[in-house]
Amino acid sequence: MQEYIDRKFRPDRRPPVSANTIHDNAAIVGIGQTAYTRNSERDELDMACEAIRNAVADAGLTMADIDGLEAFTLERTSMPTLVGALGIQNLRFSSEISYGGGAACANIMQAAAAVTTGVANYVVCYRSLNEASGHRYGRGDGYATYLSEAPTLHYGYYFPFGLLTPLSWASMYGRRWMHEFDVDPDDIGWYSVVLRENANRNPNAIFYDKPITIDDYRASQMIVEPLRLFDCCVDTDGAAAVIVTTAERAKDLKQTPAYILAAAQASTPESEIQTSYNRTPMSGLPDTWYVGQELYRVAGVGPQDIDVAELYDPFSLGGILQLEELGFCERGEGAAFCRGGDNIRVGGKIPINTSGGLLSEAYIHGYNLIIEAVRQMRGTSTSQVEGAELTLVTGGPGLPTSGMILRK
Amino acid sequence: MQEYIDRKFRPDRRPPVSANTIHDNAAIVGIGQTAYTRNSERDELDMACEAIRNAVADAGLTMADIDGLEAFTLERTSMPTLVGALGIQNLRFSSEISYGGGAACANIMQAAAAVTTGVANYVVCYRSLNEASGHRYGRGDGYATYLSEAPTLHYGYYFPFGLLTPLSWASMYGRRWMHEFDVDPDDIGWYSVVLRENANRNPNAIFYDKPITIDDYRASQMIVEPLRLFDCCVDTDGAAAVIVTTAERAKDLKQTPAYILAAAQASTPESEIQTSYNRTPMSGLPDTWYVGQELYRVAGVGPQDIDVAELYDPFSLGGILQLEELGFCERGEGAAFCRGGDNIRVGGKIPINTSGGLLSEAYIHGYNLIIEAVRQMRGTSTSQVEGAELTLVTGGPGLPTSGMILRK
Repeated sequence: MQEYIDRKFRPDRRPPVSANTIHDNAAIVGIGQTAYTRNSERDELDMACEAIRNAVADAGLTMADIDGLEAFTLERTSMPTLVGALGIQNLRFSSEISYGGGAACANIMQAAAAVTTGVANYVVCYRSLNEASGHRYGRGDGYATYLSEAPTLHYGYYFPFGLLTPLSWASMYGRRWMHEFDVDPDDIGWYSVVLRENANRNPNAIFYDKPITIDDYRASQMIVEPLRLFDCCVDTDGAAAVIVTTAERAKDLKQTPAYILAAAQASTPESEIQTSYNRTPMSGLPDTWYVGQELYRVAGVGPQDIDVAELYDPFSLGGILQLEELGFCERGEGAAFCRGGDNIRVGGKIPINTSGGLLSEAYIHGYNLIIEAVRQMRGTSTSQVEGAELTLVTGGPGLPTSGMILRK
Repeated sequence: MQEYIDRKFRPDRRPPVSANTIHDNAAIVGIGQTAYTRNSERDELDMACEAIRNAVADAGLTMADIDGLEAFTLERTSMPTLVGALGIQNLRFSSEISYGGGAACANIMQAAAAVTTGVANYVVCYRSLNEASGHRYGRGDGYATYLSEAPTLHYGYYFPFGLLTPLSWASMYGRRWMHEFDVDPDDIGWYSVVLRENANRNPNAIFYDKPITIDDYRASQMIVEPLRLFDCCVDTDGAAAVIVTTAERAKDLKQTPAYILAAAQASTPESEIQTSYNRTPMSGLPDTWYVGQELYRVAGVGPQDIDVAELYDPFSLGGILQLEELGFCERGEGAAFCRGGDNIRVGGKIPINTSGGLLSEAYIHGYNLIIEAVRQMRGTSTSQVEGAELTLVTGGPGLPTSGMILRK
């Protein structure tokens, strides 16, 4: 971890790393989603099938072409059930990624490795989630089982002190960060305001037509200090899916491919799921930093080359800290970087979460960000960044995570 | 499924398949295990760490080299906890495989794809399981939660009829197979007898020094017709781990590499976890058949070229049906093929489960088979097949599954 603490990546001190052949060898060729709602009144399997069928059709493929499937371990639709429901002839490749919201781009990385090696031809990556009408992560119930299972037993240290929800877990390292860098709480709000602006150009966003100002933000209810209602992501129901194949095959398909320039996962010691209070520095996101370093190494680009960033933001702070860890601004300056919003708006230094993000579009566990990143590469976003050639996408902050860089 | 029903693989009717570049590009370079016992009196995390450290040492590596981790979704030690416990600097690759015992070789396939693409350098694949002293799959308790979760809700069709354990689920398609092919129940017993002979040469096997005869088999308690006590695998506690890296790196390491000539997964429509009663034919294992076809295609060999087979056998029938599906004998002739035992003994047509298999060595969810396959390639098995050059290993029968072919 010393290289993270020093913010100095020392490839010379590490075992030699091979050429990463997924680099530019795979592409996202189809995207599909359901409506994003507050109450789907549907089964998650049903939603998954709709999103996947939409993605297959978008790519100009048929279900007979599909031979790979990538999911979250948290996914409640099971692989064999889905294979049956979709009528996939023989699934030649599948795996699941653990650690929740950090997994979204890891699915893409596995799919890229599968098609690059020829283990599969066309891999569906998806997430289906009734997060509003079903079990809500933010409600604090349902975590009791954590205390009966070894991998999550450490939550027993935190629950008795009222740290029962992701927001409360994150507030701990958020407070530490604000203390260390003397962050002005008013600056944090601009992140939410800009994302809401983006959502107001996206008719699929839950908060389309519900603009907020920085004063609305400042007046909104404090949930867990320093985080207010408008710092929190929205609870939604919905599903989203993408299709990954080789760059070679992508050329002949229906849509403009979004090439996967790089994709990476990272998990560091002392990383728990949003409760990593025993590491140094507690306020940092080392997993995100490692993902960034690996993405830039494999893609051969730096943060200055990225045109759009789709940052997994379960709460505003999570997005702001990622701006720091990915090198879009200096450590401790994320909130100031967002002040007034111009740096992160379309047309600014690094436009972020152009469909509204998890805060204002929908909470499909990061898959809506992946779909929006593809739209930016196709030139079809409702908040299109002109001339955008590279989009960086991340998985959840404060836990083992993943990321990717797409190119046009 | 028609091609399976016809037992005629029709690659010409399928979408074109890429060259599979994991072919011969990766190798297993380290193996490690704990003692296999009836009561470990240890935590599964503790056992996992021991097996992994043993595998790393066996390969002549250090933990600083490890940057990938492959597990079962059923694994109760979690990835972030293990990364912390082992002190892995940054895990660049990890995924999990669902569908229980079918997953073992799928872990190896993912690891091979990861090192082939350079996404990771050295991947640990492991399983740690207190199956004897902890939750026992065969006891029939603990499945109640299945009825409250969508992916396993279909067990509600079977539970009320007393089909509460894996053995009872399998007995259904076992009976059908015996009916269709007029199988002599006495023939089935030779499978168990030969595996016990192998276990009696392996001091690590639970049933070392406990020989059985075919008469012992015939006198053993009927558990679920047609399956007797000696048809069932043994419940054990233990952990096992292997290290996968590139064939290139393998050359410079401590041990004789076991090269991964091919590795494959398969999941077909109508496949449930051992309760696929609605497919045609109900008595077959189409997922195993697809795995076999893919392995032979990628490896460029056929069943006649295989020197040793390590077949995932939660019960004898599961192993015997795999002999048919993998082409070692004709469909319906598996039991007759095992009669007297000579075909499947060391020195016979296709020596199987040379460490005793799940029936007589240990139930580490297939990982002990993988380790034994590596030993056969190193020439260090206690039931060494002379001149063995190719070993085929499978995952669980009657569910989505996986397999691999190792070469010396």
